[in-house]
Amino acid sequence: MDISLELIKSISRSSPTKIVLLVIDGLGGLPNPQTGKTELETANTPNLDQLATKGICGLIDPVSPGITPGSAPAHLALFGYNPVNFNIGRGVLEAIGIDFDLEPGDIAARGNFCTVDETGSVTDRRAGRISTQKCTELCQLLDGLVIDEAKLFVRPVRGHRFVAVFRGDELASEVSDSDPQQTGVSPKTITAVSPEAERMAGIANQFVAQAKMTLVEHYPANMVLLRGFSRRPYFPTMGEVFKLKPAAIASYPMYRGLAKLVGMEVLDTGTTIEAEFNTLKQNYTNYDFFFLHIKETDTAGEDGDFDRKVRIIEEVDNALPRLISIEPDVIVVSGDHSTPALLKGHSWHPVPIVLYSKWCRPDRVSEFSESACVFGGLGRFPATQVMTLAMANALKLNKFGA
Amino acid sequence: MDISLELIKSISRSSPTKIVLLVIDGLGGLPNPQTGKTELETANTPNLDQLATKGICGLIDPVSPGITPGSAPAHLALFGYNPVNFNIGRGVLEAIGIDFDLEPGDIAARGNFCTVDETGSVTDRRAGRISTQKCTELCQLLDGLVIDEAKLFVRPVRGHRFVAVFRGDELASEVSDSDPQQTGVSPKTITAVSPEAERMAGIANQFVAQAKMTLVEHYPANMVLLRGFSRRPYFPTMGEVFKLKPAAIASYPMYRGLAKLVGMEVLDTGTTIEAEFNTLKQNYTNYDFFFLHIKETDTAGEDGDFDRKVRIIEEVDNALPRLISIEPDVIVVSGDHSTPALLKGHSWHPVPIVLYSKWCRPDRVSEFSESACVFGGLGRFPATQVMTLAMANALKLNKFGA
Repeated sequence: MDISLELIKSISRSSPTKIVLLVIDGLGGLPNPQTGKTELETANTPNLDQLATKGICGLIDPVSPGITPGSAPAHLALFGYNPVNFNIGRGVLEAIGIDFDLEPGDIAARGNFCTVDETGSVTDRRAGRISTQKCTELCQLLDGLVIDEAKLFVRPVRGHRFVAVFRGDELASEVSDSDPQQTGVSPKTITAVSPEAERMAGIANQFVAQAKMTLVEHYPANMVLLRGFSRRPYFPTMGEVFKLKPAAIASYPMYRGLAKLVGMEVLDTGTTIEAEFNTLKQNYTNYDFFFLHIKETDTAGEDGDFDRKVRIIEEVDNALPRLISIEPDVIVVSGDHSTPALLKGHSWHPVPIVLYSKWCRPDRVSEFSESACVFGGLGRFPATQVMTLAMANALKLNKFGA
Repeated sequence: MDISLELIKSISRSSPTKIVLLVIDGLGGLPNPQTGKTELETANTPNLDQLATKGICGLIDPVSPGITPGSAPAHLALFGYNPVNFNIGRGVLEAIGIDFDLEPGDIAARGNFCTVDETGSVTDRRAGRISTQKCTELCQLLDGLVIDEAKLFVRPVRGHRFVAVFRGDELASEVSDSDPQQTGVSPKTITAVSPEAERMAGIANQFVAQAKMTLVEHYPANMVLLRGFSRRPYFPTMGEVFKLKPAAIASYPMYRGLAKLVGMEVLDTGTTIEAEFNTLKQNYTNYDFFFLHIKETDTAGEDGDFDRKVRIIEEVDNALPRLISIEPDVIVVSGDHSTPALLKGHSWHPVPIVLYSKWCRPDRVSEFSESACVFGGLGRFPATQVMTLAMANALKLNKFGA
């Protein structure tokens, strides 16, 4: 059973205690068939093991047992928001992924540059996978258009991918895609799915027509496809729900964007693990909650590079004393999901978690690993409950009922 | 948190991998006071123990901790359907129990032959527990009646119990019982609880009146009582939800009926454990999901026969290599609920489960038993999540969210 945000809001209180949530992206793994040990079990992690000894361990399910989550739902769960209730549309997710500051009424769509033949049929949905540089140049040609009083932002993502954001009055997101999801046919006309979305559909179709004219000489990227029109969902902020003043330290735009969605302040930081830990230290007095995100473990897992994932875990372990030395009242170390090198992608396997506080009730686990966390005092539980637990350990929750 | 079937449907995909779900009915037990060991712990089960060693173990709750389930809700949960949301009426359950093919509009009621005195008062609600043979003869007298254009099917269950199925246009199930649930009073008139059920109530009362005339010379079975009028609930099929081509191997009609309800194809099989495993082997290429049901463990438990339950578990273990040798991608072995011989009935105790796949992340459990599964990597979780987990391990689920 998930405790509702309303309930948490009714019992949360502000206090001087501080919480640090260290998210090692894609932390969980699968055993190497040669050794029988996972990436985390292979890594030499004396500091994480000491934290496990002093703290309490367990395993978390990002969404539900068996469900492999994307990065967005997995992080929302860690922040305390049930990702099944708070669904983020494809277009919005792409905008977040490039750290685009979406305003409340904005409609975002995911875009592809594509190739069409002389009859208008799509011959390549990815325009021969043009370079990010080429994509950036083409986006500049389309960026800043004003159609029927709506302003357009067209921003590159990577390769053939871009984001189109429509800003204006009375725009609705309930429109169909222009992307036919196959070749040999023309891009579809965008249609309104609800009556309120007629204006949006009209503007989107005008944009596509203008883009076609602008791109006519830019073969193979001579047309655009749009899909996943969506509006930023409403999130009660972490300030409202948890009465925290939260800050995010993340070098990847997607995670900065997600943190902003739930009302965290995003701190400037460098791209190394060391830089991120330094940012924490420098800003420590100004906030009472820190989300610190390590990306490279997930990337190594996605690449199927078992050894690199091991090394990055060891790097994180190596940096950990800096975090411990500033003595946060609550330290939580976990991952958003598993990314076993063997599967070369996200997976459904539950993720090890360790929580340390003066009040954590330590268990007998003395090793931070998938196998050992099975025996942890926290048991196996939904990731959406991590924030409640951290808040409790920071003595930031009042009693429920009398 | 239970993931909805809609969500699973949106991420499930068809693939060549195969899942076998072996359900040992009433598997869980309680320790023999003499030895301190449960039925499963007493049994010599080298093959199950090896599966536990290679796989990942845990304990499942069929409905919720402390709830003792009937066979229908316990199986629905294992098939992924929350039994609290999918309630099967008493009449329908009896029809399923005799493998009666209910059509969508059919209304089924559970029937008792009973004894009434000359004033019409019920003197024995079970007609002196007549034999199944006598019940069968009496049902033949009533079967096939047509009342107000509705056709009646009257079929024996066991002893004094029978099923009455009403087939016709515009029949509704919202009618009261005729069974007064006590002696010394007359059977009740069946009344419509909703306006749409007036026709059904009229037909049911006519049936009771005709049955009374037909049975007048058949003391002690000289009257009928009806209760639990219900219609087959709508189930999205396992094909729709999980995109599986599922088959059921079960020698008892109730389980075949439940499997049909969720869209499994029911395979012809014999009554022995050996016959069931042979059926699996023979049909292995034609399906990608197999539900294989072993009934006798539950029967032994219900009979309070600890030793017989031990022997049957050993028989299943003995047959297991046949299943393992066909190398399904995912093997799940569990029970629908516990049936401790000490309690002579179903119980609320969580049920051991072992899951094996190439991607299962093995734990440290090396013995398939109630005590050892407590330390399993799957932890304790709701039975409704077994299918999601099996699907994940078969790599049949796409990522949730981006």
